[in-house]
Amino acid sequence: MKMIDVGEKKKTERVAVARGKVSMSDATAGIVRRGESEKGDVLAAARLAGIMAAKRTPDLVPLCHPIALTGVDVLAEVRDGGVEIEATVRTRDRTGVEMEALAAVSAGCLTVYDMLKRYERGMRIEAVELLEKKGGRTGHWTRGKPARKR
Amino acid sequence: MKMIDVGEKKKTERVAVARGKVSMSDATAGIVRRGESEKGDVLAAARLAGIMAAKRTPDLVPLCHPIALTGVDVLAEVRDGGVEIEATVRTRDRTGVEMEALAAVSAGCLTVYDMLKRYERGMRIEAVELLEKKGGRTGHWTRGKPARKR
Amino acid sequence: MKMIDVGEKKKTERVAVARGKVSMSDATAGIVRRGESEKGDVLAAARLAGIMAAKRTPDLVPLCHPIALTGVDVLAEVRDGGVEIEATVRTRDRTGVEMEALAAVSAGCLTVYDMLKRYERGMRIEAVELLEKKGGRTGHWTRGKPARKR
Amino acid sequence: MKMIDVGEKKKTERVAVARGKVSMSDATAGIVRRGESEKGDVLAAARLAGIMAAKRTPDLVPLCHPIALTGVDVLAEVRDGGVEIEATVRTRDRTGVEMEALAAVSAGCLTVYDMLKRYERGMRIEAVELLEKKGGRTGHWTRGKPARKR
Amino acid sequence: MKMIDVGEKKKTERVAVARGKVSMSDATAGIVRRGESEKGDVLAAARLAGIMAAKRTPDLVPLCHPIALTGVDVLAEVRDGGVEIEATVRTRDRTGVEMEALAAVSAGCLTVYDMLKRYERGMRIEAVELLEKKGGRTGHWTRGKPARKR
Amino acid sequence: MKMIDVGEKKKTERVAVARGKVSMSDATAGIVRRGESEKGDVLAAARLAGIMAAKRTPDLVPLCHPIALTGVDVLAEVRDGGVEIEATVRTRDRTGVEMEALAAVSAGCLTVYDMLKRYERGMRIEAVELLEKKGGRTGHWTRGKPARKR
Repeated sequence: MKMIDVGEKKKTERVAVARGKVSMSDATAGIVRRGESEKGDVLAAARLAGIMAAKRTPDLVPLCHPIALTGVDVLAEVRDGGVEIEATVRTRDRTGVEMEALAAVSAGCLTVYDMLKRYERGMRIEAVELLEKKGGRTGHWTRGKPARKR
Repeated sequence: MKMIDVGEKKKTERVAVARGKVSMSDATAGIVRRGESEKGDVLAAARLAGIMAAKRTPDLVPLCHPIALTGVDVLAEVRDGGVEIEATVRTRDRTGVEMEALAAVSAGCLTVYDMLKRYERGMRIEAVELLEKKGGRTGHWTRGKPARKR
Repeated sequence: MKMIDVGEKKKTERVAVARGKVSMSDATAGIVRRGESEKGDVLAAARLAGIMAAKRTPDLVPLCHPIALTGVDVLAEVRDGGVEIEATVRTRDRTGVEMEALAAVSAGCLTVYDMLKRYERGMRIEAVELLEKKGGRTGHWTRGKPARKR
Repeated sequence: MKMIDVGEKKKTERVAVARGKVSMSDATAGIVRRGESEKGDVLAAARLAGIMAAKRTPDLVPLCHPIALTGVDVLAEVRDGGVEIEATVRTRDRTGVEMEALAAVSAGCLTVYDMLKRYERGMRIEAVELLEKKGGRTGHWTRGKPARKR
Repeated sequence: MKMIDVGEKKKTERVAVARGKVSMSDATAGIVRRGESEKGDVLAAARLAGIMAAKRTPDLVPLCHPIALTGVDVLAEVRDGGVEIEATVRTRDRTGVEMEALAAVSAGCLTVYDMLKRYERGMRIEAVELLEKKGGRTGHWTRGKPARKR
Repeated sequence: MKMIDVGEKKKTERVAVARGKVSMSDATAGIVRRGESEKGDVLAAARLAGIMAAKRTPDLVPLCHPIALTGVDVLAEVRDGGVEIEATVRTRDRTGVEMEALAAVSAGCLTVYDMLKRYERGMRIEAVELLEKKGGRTGHWTRGKPARKR
């Protein structure tokens, strides 16, 4: 196993956007909407957990390069069927930030689960996926339209 | 927000089992099967990443208690449609280990994605969910049969 | 230097409460009150940062024992002259949790500073101090009345 | 909440100096001066804890950018009324290092408290503040003269 | 790979002692003895680094259990041919602390190397080994006499 | 103590190669060769632990600079008398990566020890040393031939 050498790659502006969802019952989603979770503000905690996880990605993903992130934004909102998390990560470095965006979404989803598990243990983290990436050798990529039902 | 006080809870044996999957094309699954990923052994890396993430759960999930885990086992295998990760976590402490099991699965899935993203950027982490938990005040819980198509 | 052996100490219920303050101008305090900080919700971020720092105290304070915290609660509110942070930490272990409570307050104060520094660089973290501790060999301790002007 | 994007900012030389103090009785200060603390060399531990905390600032302060520090110096000395900690942090990056300097001072002060708390629980961390910063868009800033009584 | 379940093991008092050495020229050892290293006090830094590493062993060694250490003591001294590090770690938990003692020694040795490498790059970390362990199912173990020339 | 300022140094390509060994009996080496260790694949775990430790070097070695590593490769193989670990670390930054390479080797060796300690507690980590470094002000350095008996 090895962390591939990226020394020859150029430092360019790179962006990645990822998304995921914690599916839950309407009753549980209502608890979030009304701010009634015993542990506190679910959406604020999920956003902060996502941002912090983005910074710790190289600790979580063994072969991932340490990168100087220039920006991280994590959104969390209650949607039909659950809480959706979306993370946008930016850098000007030698590798892309897909892993950082996906790690942010994963940590946000885990945090949502943690704060609501006493109400519904059967929640499920679904469809954690990259939506878009820009920059680097492989250029612009977006997830094709039919890839996900919304 | 607060980390709920569990001082009154009893230290009992607790187990949690979680599972998730990285869905991918047959071509990418074949790369894993044949051990041809440029970054090395995908399944071994995913298992180790999962075990290490279980230990770091309180750093990832803000309101999660630090717990003395007594055992962690993470399985990773190529199945139809992708790589499946299953984690079993054990403790003898005051809170359950659902979050540790889910964090292990999430980190394992992220690691699979990282090692294969150059072959298929559109992979998706799916259905990260608790399968079973034992111990503690709420006792034994298992995910109901129809909860997941296999 | 050494981390003193506490193996002979009893595991008892222990609580520590600490407090501190970030002093700032009324204008800056107003930004917090009205929720106008560019970086987002100052008080929520400070509370979460405090809870997470309590769990990481042994990493921050070299000779501090790793402890199984059973509960952490961090409050943050705008008061005359600034933002006040108060942390309550609980354990059932062999050493007290004074350091965890003080670390939570310090991290909360640093987070407040970070989120407001673009508005007022001269803010100051003040009077980070233990208010009370219970449990353990030395028993109950409270800060004497005249110790702090409010 | 978000970690503001700094991708457009220039990488320039940046320096920040911060200071703080642990106030204590003369008796406790004497223990430090004579090197009699049971846990070992208080000033050396505080300096090292400060340097290590500067490197971990993005883990402590949720919305703080990860930065490549080029230098960190932490001083600790016994002064009238306590132990004073001063940290100087340098980088050549896109954001300032005020938070790193303040985090170093906070961790140094917490370490002083930890090593002396058995002698005096009522010590207090005081006046953790930025003294000076250089570099970046906002240029040179120094704390005004009357800002602190010495 | 798995972190073996130790839930059935008893919590008993356990101690481990490990030792290692950084071999170097007399000239370099003299720099340590006279306290002339540019980076500061080599022996104090090595001791503190060892203590902190003991606490982080489960992060460094993937299949190692997280353990509540009750005490850690690290010694560092200049001996013929280099700097010797000895670590004693104690716990009252379900697994032994051999890895914590060896990790403390390794981090102490790395720190010695770091602080002196500008004077002698060819230094070598030698004979990091367990000297003794007590407690647990396998009882008392000591390294046999002829195992190391002193 | 201080982390020396390297702001004036140039960002150049830098490489460091380090090596070390865990000496053990033939019987224990055979367990590794035949893949019979109860905890799983020793060599894969050692390699991954080494890569992850390289990234965390600034957390382990107090005065070491945080560096953006561009590549890390860790080899582990059974040789006469034990398991040998070799790490190659690359960066394009202001300081060398000797410490990262040595930290990777140390963590790899600790992991080997951990996975085999139940078979042979007397194993020893030997001769952790730099083999070569390139780049930076001091240029190319290689360990002299007679430095190590093989």
